[in-house]
Amino acid sequence: MSANSFGEVFQITSFGESHGRAMGVIIEGCPAGVTFDAKILEQALARRRPGHGPVTSARNEADEPEILSGVFDGKTLGTPIAVMVRNQDARSQDYDKIKNEARRGHADDVWRDKFTHVDHRGGGRSSGRETLARVIGGAFAEMMLRELAPELSVRAIPRKVGEMQLGEEGISDPNWQKVELMLAKLRENGDSVGGIAEVRIARPPRGLGQPVFHKLKADLTAAMMSIGAVTGVELGGGFTLAEQRGLQVHVGHNESVYGGVRGGISTGEVIQLRVAFKPTSSILDVAKRGRHDPCILLRALPVLEAMAYLVLADHILWRRLDEVSR
Amino acid sequence: MSANSFGEVFQITSFGESHGRAMGVIIEGCPAGVTFDAKILEQALARRRPGHGPVTSARNEADEPEILSGVFDGKTLGTPIAVMVRNQDARSQDYDKIKNEARRGHADDVWRDKFTHVDHRGGGRSSGRETLARVIGGAFAEMMLRELAPELSVRAIPRKVGEMQLGEEGISDPNWQKVELMLAKLRENGDSVGGIAEVRIARPPRGLGQPVFHKLKADLTAAMMSIGAVTGVELGGGFTLAEQRGLQVHVGHNESVYGGVRGGISTGEVIQLRVAFKPTSSILDVAKRGRHDPCILLRALPVLEAMAYLVLADHILWRRLDEVSR
Amino acid sequence: MSANSFGEVFQITSFGESHGRAMGVIIEGCPAGVTFDAKILEQALARRRPGHGPVTSARNEADEPEILSGVFDGKTLGTPIAVMVRNQDARSQDYDKIKNEARRGHADDVWRDKFTHVDHRGGGRSSGRETLARVIGGAFAEMMLRELAPELSVRAIPRKVGEMQLGEEGISDPNWQKVELMLAKLRENGDSVGGIAEVRIARPPRGLGQPVFHKLKADLTAAMMSIGAVTGVELGGGFTLAEQRGLQVHVGHNESVYGGVRGGISTGEVIQLRVAFKPTSSILDVAKRGRHDPCILLRALPVLEAMAYLVLADHILWRRLDEVSR
Amino acid sequence: MSANSFGEVFQITSFGESHGRAMGVIIEGCPAGVTFDAKILEQALARRRPGHGPVTSARNEADEPEILSGVFDGKTLGTPIAVMVRNQDARSQDYDKIKNEARRGHADDVWRDKFTHVDHRGGGRSSGRETLARVIGGAFAEMMLRELAPELSVRAIPRKVGEMQLGEEGISDPNWQKVELMLAKLRENGDSVGGIAEVRIARPPRGLGQPVFHKLKADLTAAMMSIGAVTGVELGGGFTLAEQRGLQVHVGHNESVYGGVRGGISTGEVIQLRVAFKPTSSILDVAKRGRHDPCILLRALPVLEAMAYLVLADHILWRRLDEVSR
Repeated sequence: MSANSFGEVFQITSFGESHGRAMGVIIEGCPAGVTFDAKILEQALARRRPGHGPVTSARNEADEPEILSGVFDGKTLGTPIAVMVRNQDARSQDYDKIKNEARRGHADDVWRDKFTHVDHRGGGRSSGRETLARVIGGAFAEMMLRELAPELSVRAIPRKVGEMQLGEEGISDPNWQKVELMLAKLRENGDSVGGIAEVRIARPPRGLGQPVFHKLKADLTAAMMSIGAVTGVELGGGFTLAEQRGLQVHVGHNESVYGGVRGGISTGEVIQLRVAFKPTSSILDVAKRGRHDPCILLRALPVLEAMAYLVLADHILWRRLDEVSR
Repeated sequence: MSANSFGEVFQITSFGESHGRAMGVIIEGCPAGVTFDAKILEQALARRRPGHGPVTSARNEADEPEILSGVFDGKTLGTPIAVMVRNQDARSQDYDKIKNEARRGHADDVWRDKFTHVDHRGGGRSSGRETLARVIGGAFAEMMLRELAPELSVRAIPRKVGEMQLGEEGISDPNWQKVELMLAKLRENGDSVGGIAEVRIARPPRGLGQPVFHKLKADLTAAMMSIGAVTGVELGGGFTLAEQRGLQVHVGHNESVYGGVRGGISTGEVIQLRVAFKPTSSILDVAKRGRHDPCILLRALPVLEAMAYLVLADHILWRRLDEVSR
Repeated sequence: MSANSFGEVFQITSFGESHGRAMGVIIEGCPAGVTFDAKILEQALARRRPGHGPVTSARNEADEPEILSGVFDGKTLGTPIAVMVRNQDARSQDYDKIKNEARRGHADDVWRDKFTHVDHRGGGRSSGRETLARVIGGAFAEMMLRELAPELSVRAIPRKVGEMQLGEEGISDPNWQKVELMLAKLRENGDSVGGIAEVRIARPPRGLGQPVFHKLKADLTAAMMSIGAVTGVELGGGFTLAEQRGLQVHVGHNESVYGGVRGGISTGEVIQLRVAFKPTSSILDVAKRGRHDPCILLRALPVLEAMAYLVLADHILWRRLDEVSR
Repeated sequence: MSANSFGEVFQITSFGESHGRAMGVIIEGCPAGVTFDAKILEQALARRRPGHGPVTSARNEADEPEILSGVFDGKTLGTPIAVMVRNQDARSQDYDKIKNEARRGHADDVWRDKFTHVDHRGGGRSSGRETLARVIGGAFAEMMLRELAPELSVRAIPRKVGEMQLGEEGISDPNWQKVELMLAKLRENGDSVGGIAEVRIARPPRGLGQPVFHKLKADLTAAMMSIGAVTGVELGGGFTLAEQRGLQVHVGHNESVYGGVRGGISTGEVIQLRVAFKPTSSILDVAKRGRHDPCILLRALPVLEAMAYLVLADHILWRRLDEVSR
């Protein structure tokens, strides 16, 4: 039982308050012999980092990860991998003045009610900075999957920013410039907007997922829903299937309606998820105004990918236990 | 690690193949001293039972639960509660002919690929009959919640059957008769339709949920997504929030957009979920044609409620561990 | 988190009160494709059964196991295996008179203090009858190990009954007749005696066990200590090593001092455990006097073996996760 | 499932290789509001530290713990507590020469066989240095227990060093000087000796432990057996009870024979464990000779206490879930 762990076989435990000494993650269940690829880790962290362009917040952090254990001579040891990132831009002194007032739009009051003693400095665990742990964990999951499922690819793509639709290319879509303009204006106005991301898992191994409670679709959905601003998840045809007829859906052999999962288990086809984000509430936070992300979904893309990698890593190991002769 | 268990503190383990000897459930973590209420169990099972009216399938089963352990002198003992339901209407002989052909629309081929040796009789674990375990588990969760949160109520309501909308009253809506007509026709035609259910949790205790991975919204969503035909889940404003602006959403003080959960934790307000179902694929199953449910969502309502009760029971006990002085 | 489950990958959950409807076990994590061998199950249960000869208690029970799920066409399905044994000789009416008095020597008062509401009929969960679940679970573990480690053998042997020593042959030792005489006299006198069993695991696979908390020695020891009357466990040289010098122990290359486990992990050599039992306290139980086991260790031998099989089954599956290329 | 975690509710996860960057621990499940007491942590670490007197090894390390998360304003937050200790005296270059030869007496070859890729520098995870994580975790458990069970005390006492007995006062026993002389001579000779420690838990709360698999005695035993050099554990009368008669043991009302645990659950009486250690095998390790501990048990005393605190902390929280009205 652990409120801060995710995964059954390949498992991460996230730690750290946003304005404490460090954030970090323990990765357990990663087998020995996985080649460590620093580039995967760096790129994932670089994409997550704030302060690039008008569309993400300006908090400037190096986010240098330090690997404390579990990797030696370029490979994983099969022991817990501990990775830490120091909090450098803490400015916690700014937060003393808000010690006793819950920041509007934040969960502060709910937390105080629950735990009595809380960290009033910047949200503690509910801060978006907690996702560092996930991105690092996801990078190790990706390294392992490179070896066990080399054809697999995972991509999170913005498909809707507010009312503006984007094609399958996401930020390469010709409409993207209009989106950037909109976002710049929103930031100026102290406003924000929601959006929808697509998570596309191409060439997944077959047979991932467990039949009853750890269906692949359930684990992927829980993974996405554990991210702060997410308010909805759908698989394949999702909510649009609700309106349709069985003969139309199933006889048309349109496999994509299943989103790559049947009976809870991956079929080998593309797995598609759509994830809805509400507009960020940090616009209400006086301390953050002007530094806020006008569309948090754009920051969250590597987090969505990390969570998908973690679920896939978990189930690809779990599959080793399906059959006696494996 | 268990593929067939759900919950961390209040935990169920589901067992049984649909055409084997029995289905059943073990409930662990239910504390001693909960008053056993046979009526809650009977009503939940009665609502789940098929064969009532034109809208649900005709498989006729008594589904008499036998409580094997964990209850004595009208109260729970704090020991595992084991409940079993014998499979009476198995007709497994009918299924021998389909031994080597995967039933279309079912997950049979995916399972065979994964486990090699499978139960070809009626879907085994992927059958809707597995939900008996959940409904029984949910009934015990409800009994406990009656004592720990007496004001709480949980209701699953059909809000959309195919293209037809229903109001907050669900089957008491004036449109319901039209829905019934549609469903009768669909069954006749060997067709089916999807739908959307609303799960409404009224007067929940505050402070349920864990801040990072076991957010209440994540656990509720995973619970719903672990049900066979579910293809999407949204909380509160859900996907519609994706199009909205922050100032509009957050400043309007329209708390309902959060769906009763903030920072992953219940606020005490109504928790609203919307759950999308695809049209059932059993229309493709020759052995079932004519006996199929034209809209599986209507059968699933007590299952949705059971899953919600299980999540709430889990977190109401977990909350006892939040603070040292509790 | 489960008080009634044992094992991480191959996991059993025990249920049932001794005077309730049934005892039983759910086995999760047993992979698909294990050949079901009824003889292994029958023999394990037959050895555990009371009422054979002067040395074990006379409670007469058929203990017919019914397999409710998880096995089909002679093989395991990879789904939960549920097995139930009805309680036939319950006589719970005898126990009504002792409803409010704790049975001496039993844990009744401790339980009442803990759970308030308890089952006063014959000890409930603390009864030796609970070990049925372990023996059944162990039989399935043994079936799996026959396929994955065909050379492995597990035997529990009585080495000491009270002050009387027995050789490696246990009950085939020439002294055994004297032991039987002693036990008959003890029963007559309403007395009992303790003893020491040896658990000998021959030809185990190498590499079982995890380096830190799930050391093979820790899991085996906890397994034995979870049995009612056990008061001590030692591995290999055990307590006698406490008196010895390192040069003597380690340089003599006497590998047997390690008991077949080094660094927490099996070396492939014989694993030896010695398990101490206190004299049974049921002699104090008026309702049981004359029916009691004069030396509970003799009844417990198949339970010791079952617990060892369970630990080995757990770790032989867990080993599949050690290395990325496996 | 985690090879490096211990505990169900109050849970630690240990990380770090002895010659890597850092050792550390994540403590999960510690409730919010526990007063942080630096002295408890410092004293536990000071007692564990090597290099004090002739009897423990000379590796000189400051072992300064850094608390990375989970504590704020002098209290725990209910979030994961992460504590790290840097490895300063690594000298890993010394170990390059032994890269391909397993160090005698160590588990290196067993590990290499299991994981293929291993850390050859000083034992990695199997090093005694790993116990830092346990001592830190135990210190937090102790802090919590000070509030929840203020009368409780836990002490580990050496009762036997080789063949020399010590009284209940341990190192305050008049024989202690002779022991020190013996140990100095052993170190000079490159020899070592085993021993027996007593763990004495005074004034424990009643009702700790779960009835079947998480009996308090089973969890305490597993805790002790997870320590490297431990080869045996007994509770209360332990192995001596094996020779005794029931009437003698149980009728004499000598409660101490039960060691403070009945039916798996604490009775409130003193809990006594005896823990056997083999002579340390590091005498075979050329790199360590002269720096080795002649009797590892003396270094392990704070580790034994830490493991006991961890088990008690786990069960004192678990008890909150026993009864519905609690």
